[in-house]
Order: sequence, then structure tokens, then C-alpha cells
Amino acid sequence: MNRVLVTGASGFIGTRCIVPLLARGYEVHAVSTRMRQDDGVKWHQANLLDPEQITSLVKLVRPSHLLHLAWDVTPGAFWTSQLNVRWLNASLTLAEAFVRAGGQRIVMTGSCAEYRSTEEPCREDSTPIAPTTLYGASKAALGIVVPACTRELGVASTAWARVFYLYGPGEQTSRLVPSVIQSLRRGAAIPCSVGDRVRDFLYVDDVAGALAALLDSEVTGPVNVASGVPTTIRGLLEMIGDHMGNTHLLQFGARPSAPDEPAVLVADVTRLTRDVGWTPSVSLREGVKRTIEWWQSEDTHAN
Amino acid sequence: MNRVLVTGASGFIGTRCIVPLLARGYEVHAVSTRMRQDDGVKWHQANLLDPEQITSLVKLVRPSHLLHLAWDVTPGAFWTSQLNVRWLNASLTLAEAFVRAGGQRIVMTGSCAEYRSTEEPCREDSTPIAPTTLYGASKAALGIVVPACTRELGVASTAWARVFYLYGPGEQTSRLVPSVIQSLRRGAAIPCSVGDRVRDFLYVDDVAGALAALLDSEVTGPVNVASGVPTTIRGLLEMIGDHMGNTHLLQFGARPSAPDEPAVLVADVTRLTRDVGWTPSVSLREGVKRTIEWWQSEDTHAN
Repeated sequence: MNRVLVTGASGFIGTRCIVPLLARGYEVHAVSTRMRQDDGVKWHQANLLDPEQITSLVKLVRPSHLLHLAWDVTPGAFWTSQLNVRWLNASLTLAEAFVRAGGQRIVMTGSCAEYRSTEEPCREDSTPIAPTTLYGASKAALGIVVPACTRELGVASTAWARVFYLYGPGEQTSRLVPSVIQSLRRGAAIPCSVGDRVRDFLYVDDVAGALAALLDSEVTGPVNVASGVPTTIRGLLEMIGDHMGNTHLLQFGARPSAPDEPAVLVADVTRLTRDVGWTPSVSLREGVKRTIEWWQSEDTHAN
Repeated sequence: MNRVLVTGASGFIGTRCIVPLLARGYEVHAVSTRMRQDDGVKWHQANLLDPEQITSLVKLVRPSHLLHLAWDVTPGAFWTSQLNVRWLNASLTLAEAFVRAGGQRIVMTGSCAEYRSTEEPCREDSTPIAPTTLYGASKAALGIVVPACTRELGVASTAWARVFYLYGPGEQTSRLVPSVIQSLRRGAAIPCSVGDRVRDFLYVDDVAGALAALLDSEVTGPVNVASGVPTTIRGLLEMIGDHMGNTHLLQFGARPSAPDEPAVLVADVTRLTRDVGWTPSVSLREGVKRTIEWWQSEDTHAN
């Protein structure tokens, strides 16, 4: 039986990966610093920044597959945090321990922040890697070293998922989509930038589904995990406002745009759709609707 | 006074860096796993793969400058050794410890093995980073993360020296140039490949001089450390044979060429010559002559 170790399993993406992994027949071992309970899942509590805990965990579980999602993603802080460097180190330790314990297949998660800014859709094999943040640099570095490292260890087919923008139920409240939904629910006006930046959004369950499909494939190397559909920030927010019936609260142009952000950041998804054979099942409109409904159905989300 | 910590200081390049650093007025603190004695240099014995020893050393020396050369370069093994990953980790620990202790200027050494194979001279800002070995991948990863990491720590101007091919006195005996010289001294025939691969060779004292000049400059980012002069392997070996008067012992074409090696690997040295303002002082012919004479003057070189 295929046995997958999922790190960061209580996070925004990790939580959503469990169902598609179980559906694909994996025995799921989920790791988090927090203990949880889920039907059909074995939970393990561990701090992966401690090399000894990594080694013990891998020896205990002896996974055939590894889906490594854990990283520091504290909103507002993660772009520049030195914890990125510790996660880079920890991820390398994890990869080596996994392969030495007989592991066969690795999917780790990178980011669109690895790419050099370009107006064209980012392609895995031709868009230059030129991150401008410590977060992007640490991910890019890991994406370069892990395949070389596991190849030398003589096993492990390795794929590197470059995740673009995502949204959906359970996102941390200070992030863009949840904060806009919460403000609109309160009837508060929202000063926004012009919102002309173009991004590539994918619903979190589709991100999770794509990662499970990638893990279950034999595709190696970098693979963009994204929708391939360009959307302006304004377009996304207006879709939220339309659904909630108060688009007039969105004050576009009331705030300056953040400097240094790329005008366009969109994925070429040829590898995901053709090589992995996976396509999204939730449109942006449907994903926005589900996300709003999730927030409306919950009393508190102080995550 | 500028105080430089030199790691790998008893190595092939490190040994040669001490004179140019002293000449530029640096107080030189040299680190090695082996203890040495040199006039005007403070030697420290430390194993940099131990994070605690890194921290202790940096706190003790409190260097303003860091020239980090230490790495695993065991001939034949270093391309694929997992020690590369440990040196990546150690180098990141060193960079952070250095900046936290008030350090201002870092030069670390990368490699031409970071570049994607190309017939054109490799340019720091446009030749894609696409290493094919774990050694190249680890160096490329470090070259991406260190500048981002030190920038976030709020100090430290960082340059990344991509060193190409080098040769000279003190090179490990199993490497190409020493092994050819030793065979020719014994009068032994040498079965060689065709030798049509084109490389970029720089005499070790020039490599050391370039690194000292780079450290002493304000240039940041990647800088090729090389001659910029294309030379075939055959051309280099014939120059050795010419000087020793027994070129007939070189049997070109008697062995197959190693697979997977790039046909051409040559540097564009515009950044080194224009931005750093440094040019080599030893021609290939003169460097070969000095290297042969060094081997002839030594009784044993079992390094």
C-alpha cells in the first residue's frame, strides 16, 4: 500500500489534501505541530525544525510517498522571515531522511515567487528563476537542490509544485479574500488600490487535488499548480462584491498600489494539464461563492 | 581596520588568498580543520559543519569581512557527495552568524557548474542557472539564498564569485594538471581523450587575487572569476608537454571523452574586469611553467 507522509497537514492547503489522498487509496500520515483528529488519518505531532524529530518520525512511519507542505507562512511576515532559511534546511534534512528510509516519491511545494517577473505566462522550463524575496529565494534554492540530492541518493522521483495564488475556506483572516469578505459582511467600506495587477487564482480544494494528482503521477521536475486563467485583483474583488450585493463598498483607487509587485503573475499550466492530466473543477465564480458561504456559516474563524 | 575571516584557508585557493588580503591591509583570520602557522595571520581551528563552532568562532573574531571558501572538494567524489547539502546548510548558518555579529561584507564562492550548458560565454545576469550535479545545485542554491538572507538581516553587501577552472601549485595530485605533470616527469605515456572540450583556466594566484579584489570592492551579486580565454583541454596539455619536452607521450584520442560534459564552458568576464576592475597577471603559458617548476622543486606532494 502507498503510505504518504503529509507535512503542514493542519495548514490551509494541507487540511484539504487529506480527502483527495484518501480517495486515491493512500494510507495518510499527517504531521503537524498541533494534534488533530480525522477519520481514516494517522496524526503525528512533530516539530520539523528539529532534525531529530524528523528522523524519528520518518523511521516510525516509513512512508513510500512524501507531500511536504510545511513552511512558515505567517501573513505579513513570511516574505522576509529568517525562518525561511530554517525551513530550507529542515526540508533538505527531511528529503534525505525520507529517501534513506526507503521513500520513493516526493512532492514538495515551491512558489510563483521563484520566477523572474514577466508579462508572459510563467513556464517551468524557460522562465528564469530570479526571486526578489527571501521566501522566493528559499523556495527556489530548495527546488534546485532537492531533485539533485535525492537523485544522488539513488531513489525518489521528485516533483516540485510551484503554487500560484489560492483562496478558499480556512484561509487566514488577515489575507486578502477573507479580509474583504469580513469587511463586506460588516457593511464597511474598503479602500482598495486600483486593482489592475493580474494574478492566477486557484480554489484551495483544486490546489489540493492537483497536488494529490501530481504525487500520484510519475511526473518529475517543476510543475506549476495554478488555473492558467489571468484575473485582475479588481475582477476578483468585484466577484466577491457581486455575490454579496455590495460592490459599492469597494473603493478602487483609494489606496496606492504596493510598490515592487509584478504587474502580471500567471502560470502556463501545460505541464499540469498535459503531463499530470489534471484540470480544475471549481471556477473562480463558484469558488468565490463557496468561500463566502463558508464564512457566513461559521461563527468565528480566529485562525 | 578591516578584519576578514577566511574559511577553507588551508585549501588550494585559500592558501593563496592570504598574501593578497594582507597586501590590501586586512587583518586575516584563517579557519581550517587543520592548524597552521603563517606570518601575520591568526589561525583558528574549527569544524564549520558544527553550527556551535561557527557561532563561537564568529563571536570570537567579530570579522567585518567574510571570504567563505570552505566546501567538500574531494577529487572524484565532490560532484555527487551529500556533504554538499551539509555545506549548504553550514554556509547559511555562517552567513547569518556573521551578519548578526556585525559583519558588513561577504564574498562566497560558487561555480561555473551552476550554469546551463551553452556555447556562448556564460554571463552572470542572463545565462540560465540549471546545474546538472548536486555540487552545482548546492552552490546555485546558496548563491540564491545568501544575498536574500543577508539583505533581510539589514546589512552585508554580498558578492557571489562563480569560479571556473583553475590550476597551479598545491593542487590535489589526482586532478588533471598535477596528474599529467607527474606522469610526464616519470616519462609515462598518457592515454587522453580527444581533448576538444573548451574550458576557461585561471592560475590559482590570479583566482586568489580576483577574490581579494572582489572582497575589497563594493560589487554585489554574481561575478565570474575566470580568464575569459577559451582553451581546449588538448591545448592546455600540449602546453605542459611543450614545456617538459615530451608532448609525444600525450596520446590524444586513446580514451573516450567523458559523457555528459558540456562542450564549452567559458566565462564572460565583463563584470570582473569592468565593475571590479581586476585583470589576470599570469598568462596560461606562464602559469603552466610555474606549476611545472613547483612540482619539480618539491620532493613529495601527497596532499
